[in-house]
Amino acid sequence: MVRFATIGTNIITHEFLSAAAKHPEFRLQAVYSRSVEKAQAFNQAYGAPLLFDSLEELAACPQVDAIYIGSTNYVHAPQALTMLSGGKHVLVEKPAGSNLREVRAMVDTAKSHGLIFMEAIRNVYQPGYEIIRNNLHKIGAVRRMVAIYCKYSSRYDAYKNGTLLNAFRTELSNSALMDIGVYCIHPMVKLLGMPDSVTATSTLLHTGFEGAGTVILNYRDKQGVALYSKIVNSALPSEIQGEKGSIIMPHITRLAGSYIQYNDGTQEPLPIPQEEDGMYHQVRAFLDAIAGRLDTAKSDQASLDEAAVMEEARQQTGIHFPADDAR
Amino acid sequence: MVRFATIGTNIITHEFLSAAAKHPEFRLQAVYSRSVEKAQAFNQAYGAPLLFDSLEELAACPQVDAIYIGSTNYVHAPQALTMLSGGKHVLVEKPAGSNLREVRAMVDTAKSHGLIFMEAIRNVYQPGYEIIRNNLHKIGAVRRMVAIYCKYSSRYDAYKNGTLLNAFRTELSNSALMDIGVYCIHPMVKLLGMPDSVTATSTLLHTGFEGAGTVILNYRDKQGVALYSKIVNSALPSEIQGEKGSIIMPHITRLAGSYIQYNDGTQEPLPIPQEEDGMYHQVRAFLDAIAGRLDTAKSDQASLDEAAVMEEARQQTGIHFPADDAR
Repeated sequence: MVRFATIGTNIITHEFLSAAAKHPEFRLQAVYSRSVEKAQAFNQAYGAPLLFDSLEELAACPQVDAIYIGSTNYVHAPQALTMLSGGKHVLVEKPAGSNLREVRAMVDTAKSHGLIFMEAIRNVYQPGYEIIRNNLHKIGAVRRMVAIYCKYSSRYDAYKNGTLLNAFRTELSNSALMDIGVYCIHPMVKLLGMPDSVTATSTLLHTGFEGAGTVILNYRDKQGVALYSKIVNSALPSEIQGEKGSIIMPHITRLAGSYIQYNDGTQEPLPIPQEEDGMYHQVRAFLDAIAGRLDTAKSDQASLDEAAVMEEARQQTGIHFPADDAR
Repeated sequence: MVRFATIGTNIITHEFLSAAAKHPEFRLQAVYSRSVEKAQAFNQAYGAPLLFDSLEELAACPQVDAIYIGSTNYVHAPQALTMLSGGKHVLVEKPAGSNLREVRAMVDTAKSHGLIFMEAIRNVYQPGYEIIRNNLHKIGAVRRMVAIYCKYSSRYDAYKNGTLLNAFRTELSNSALMDIGVYCIHPMVKLLGMPDSVTATSTLLHTGFEGAGTVILNYRDKQGVALYSKIVNSALPSEIQGEKGSIIMPHITRLAGSYIQYNDGTQEPLPIPQEEDGMYHQVRAFLDAIAGRLDTAKSDQASLDEAAVMEEARQQTGIHFPADDAR
């Protein structure tokens, strides 16, 4: 039995709880919100026995083993560090931190306390990710991975009407790259490794908020190209281009339906099952890591590489977060 | 009646002649090759009355009105300038020149002699190009155009076996961008205009030849992204991303089948006919321009912009042509 608390009361936390409920060892023990009223309202559907409006008290609570953090980007790391220091395992929404320093602090703190830290980046925990990795050799030398995720944000209408919701506020460590592009960057660095260099350009909205961008990961013999946006949709699939053929993924976050298109014109479907709802496999991995059945060294490295690439991209595009100034 | 000569005896010149034969005012008057034997062999299928192995004599021949140049990239401009100076109209294969200076020289020379210069870049002369332009307003503010053309070159096998064919020789002004990426760059600058800046990265093969690359055209409020390759195929379509929906093009050189995917999930097919064989519409435009029925100011500008973008991209990726040093 792993006793969880949640931080954050947005839709993503509901999604987490829906996925988590399918795992028998999961138990929702506590709900945190900045106000008890919001915690109570959120908890109505779940009935967790404990409510918190103090992070320090939650961190100190001996009846909680692990925390899911689904709050706004800029508080991920400070909240996670508070929880880790209190002896809790932490599963934190993507992007784990505002920058590399924050992610490194979480990884190091977890390690020094013998705790599990994990970034909730669902697409690399789906079964399809490993199936694609295991089939990569079939397409010959990989020369480019094109990862595409462009999603017209429901909050963009408000933005255009002059209302600045959190999702469009740079000072909260939000940006198209942080919120959407991360789904492209993370699987690329996990699959291809850390690039030799990064090349990034962004389309900024009139407030300076990054609405869309393109990040190129440069390797000696190949490229990773991430195309992401919060202000348009895209119908394009993602693709890993090899000299003998391509692996086509209908969507970088939904890998079922992926197939190999060989240069000779033949196709080979990849045996990827329809995924359970979004976070199911992510929660499974986190619980396995807590139980000592899964080593987190590789996921730590992928989160660090992701953060390094995104920080370098932001330096090139001039997107600065207040969190970058903290010491 | 327009009396043509051809320069170049590769497959592309056969394609040109196949398309040109469908136009009643076209007549093949002469064939040029560096050797009379090759000109004779090439001409067997056509029976042109004149054969040349001297560019100067061809340029001076009063029985020839117009030239199609399908030779190797690095000789396009010098050959075109010789022909223009001899009073011939010139249709030159893409890319028109090795760099901006060469393209500007062709445009200026044609203008000063009252002649037609045109770059044979077939995809912007297909009916689909104008149909897409006329439907652009339906997708709202355009935020990105993603143009993808990746074609595993039949000559790449020879390259990997140690045989360096022309298609993989940088000194002939060949590169993945020049040979393949040009099909992406040209329609982007023609549709979106000249970008504020260019960001380019390349994957180089062991000889230094550019096997693939990504070029980003940066505009204040949008991007153009060209993904091109001579060493892999891609199954991805191209896409123009707007705030209300996307225009999806099955292939940047074959526009039939293009459609609009709206944000609300509905689709609208675009009424683009199946194209005639590749160069049919290109030859039509060239003949119309010679007859004074088509102004070439816009096509001149698109060729100049294409050359400027590709030269800037090459400067960033360190791909230098001997033709760049000529004065």
